[in-house]
Amino acid sequence: MLVIPLKDFPQIKILDDLELIIANYFEEESLEINDGDILVVAHTIVSIAEGSVVNKTDVTISERAMKIAKKNNVDPIKVELALRDGEIIRDTPVLITQNEHGLITDYSGVDESNAPPECFVLLPTNPDRSARKLHEYFLEKFGIHVPVIISDTQGRPWRKGSINLAIGIAGMSPFMKYAGSTDLYGNELHSSVVCIADELASAAELVMGQADEGVPLVLIRGVEYIKSDEDASEIIRNKSENLFQ
Amino acid sequence: MLVIPLKDFPQIKILDDLELIIANYFEEESLEINDGDILVVAHTIVSIAEGSVVNKTDVTISERAMKIAKKNNVDPIKVELALRDGEIIRDTPVLITQNEHGLITDYSGVDESNAPPECFVLLPTNPDRSARKLHEYFLEKFGIHVPVIISDTQGRPWRKGSINLAIGIAGMSPFMKYAGSTDLYGNELHSSVVCIADELASAAELVMGQADEGVPLVLIRGVEYIKSDEDASEIIRNKSENLFQ
Repeated sequence: MLVIPLKDFPQIKILDDLELIIANYFEEESLEINDGDILVVAHTIVSIAEGSVVNKTDVTISERAMKIAKKNNVDPIKVELALRDGEIIRDTPVLITQNEHGLITDYSGVDESNAPPECFVLLPTNPDRSARKLHEYFLEKFGIHVPVIISDTQGRPWRKGSINLAIGIAGMSPFMKYAGSTDLYGNELHSSVVCIADELASAAELVMGQADEGVPLVLIRGVEYIKSDEDASEIIRNKSENLFQ
Repeated sequence: MLVIPLKDFPQIKILDDLELIIANYFEEESLEINDGDILVVAHTIVSIAEGSVVNKTDVTISERAMKIAKKNNVDPIKVELALRDGEIIRDTPVLITQNEHGLITDYSGVDESNAPPECFVLLPTNPDRSARKLHEYFLEKFGIHVPVIISDTQGRPWRKGSINLAIGIAGMSPFMKYAGSTDLYGNELHSSVVCIADELASAAELVMGQADEGVPLVLIRGVEYIKSDEDASEIIRNKSENLFQ
C-alpha cells in the first residue's frame, strides 16, 4: 500500500472551486491517478471552499456557552459555535456534541487551526455530499472511479491523542465485513467488521501532519475496498447500540 | 509512506521463539529492513508464541460470567476469560474491561479468531515488554533501530466497525505533539497531540486483514517519529481525564 502526500497543493480560499483546483493540480503536477486509488481530503479545505468559516467578531456568545467555556477552560466563541452546530452529549471535561448527520465530535469539530486569520473553521455542512461531489467530478472529468474520504482529527474517550477519522465518504463502503470468511485455522469469523474508512483516514494523517506542512490531500494506492453508495453516516452507531447513551 | 504486508510468514505455534522466527524470515526472504522502518505485529502471534492461549475445555464458567454472557448473547467461556483478565468498566451491551496495564478493551481482547483449534487467544501478558524484546533483538542482531508496535483490533463507543490500535510499543513515542508549531496561517497550535501509534496500527491493518490472509507482520517505511522509551500505557487516559469514569 502506498500513501502519497500531495505536496505543494495551493492554499484554498473561501468560495474557491475545490473540484476544479484539485483537477488542475493533478494535471499541472502530471500526477498519476488510477482507477481504484483513494483520495483522502482534510475537511479544512472543504470547509473553507464551501464557506463554512466564521469570523470571530461576528459571534455573540450566549450565557450557556460562556458557562461551558469557563468549566472547560476553552475559548467561549468555540463553544458558542459548537452549540449552534450540535446537540450536547456531555459538556465536561470537553464538550461532546452530535450534529444533524449523527456525527459525534468534540466541540462539533469547530477548529482554529489552519483557519483564515481571526476565523474558526466549522465542519462542512454535509461532508458526504462534499465527498460525492468530488468523487463524481473525477468520474466525469477523468473517467476513473476514485473513492473520496473527507477526514477530521478527533479525540477519543479512553485514549490520549487524536486520530484522523472519516466524516464523509463516497464511492466505497466504509467497512470490510469478514463474516462468513475463515481465519487461519479454518474457524468461521462471525462478526468481524472493520471500519477501513477510519483506518484510511488515519493512514493519510501520518503524511498530512497537523501544522504548516500544507498537505491537505493524500492519495492511497493498493487497498482492497468494496464499491458502494453507503455514506459516512453508516459509521455512526444507532442510539440503541451506542455504549454511552 | 509505504505499508508492506510481509507475506508467507510461517504459522506460529505455542512457545515458538518469535524473535528468532522473525529474524530468520527476514534473512530467508532477503527482505530489506532499514533503520527507521516500523514493524507492526498482530498481537495474536505474540500471544500464541508466549502461550497466552487457553483451551476451552480447561475453563470453568462462573455464575457471574454466565449472567453477562446471556445478557450480551456471547460465548460464556469468552466472558469468563475476559473477567479473569480485567476489571469491569461496563457489562452491557458488550463487556468492556480494563486490564492491569490500564488498557480498556471489549472482552479483555479475548478472541477466538486465528486461535488454535478449541482455544481462545488472550492478549499478551505485557505487550510493551513483548514489543521491547523484539525491538532490542533487531538492534542486537541487525544493528538497526526498528520501532515495534503490537496491535489489536477493537470496537469503539460511538462508531461502528473495529479499528486496529497499538497495545504495545517500543522504540518510538506513541505521539506527535504539535504544540508550539504553527499552522498554515502562522497561528500557534496549542494542544494538538496525535496518537500516531494507533494510526500506524490502523494503516497496517489495511494490508493485514482479519481472516486467513496470514499477514501478521507489516513493515511501514517513510514515517516521521520521535525515538522514545514511552510505552503504550502512555496512551491510556488517566481516570481523572477519562470522559467515561
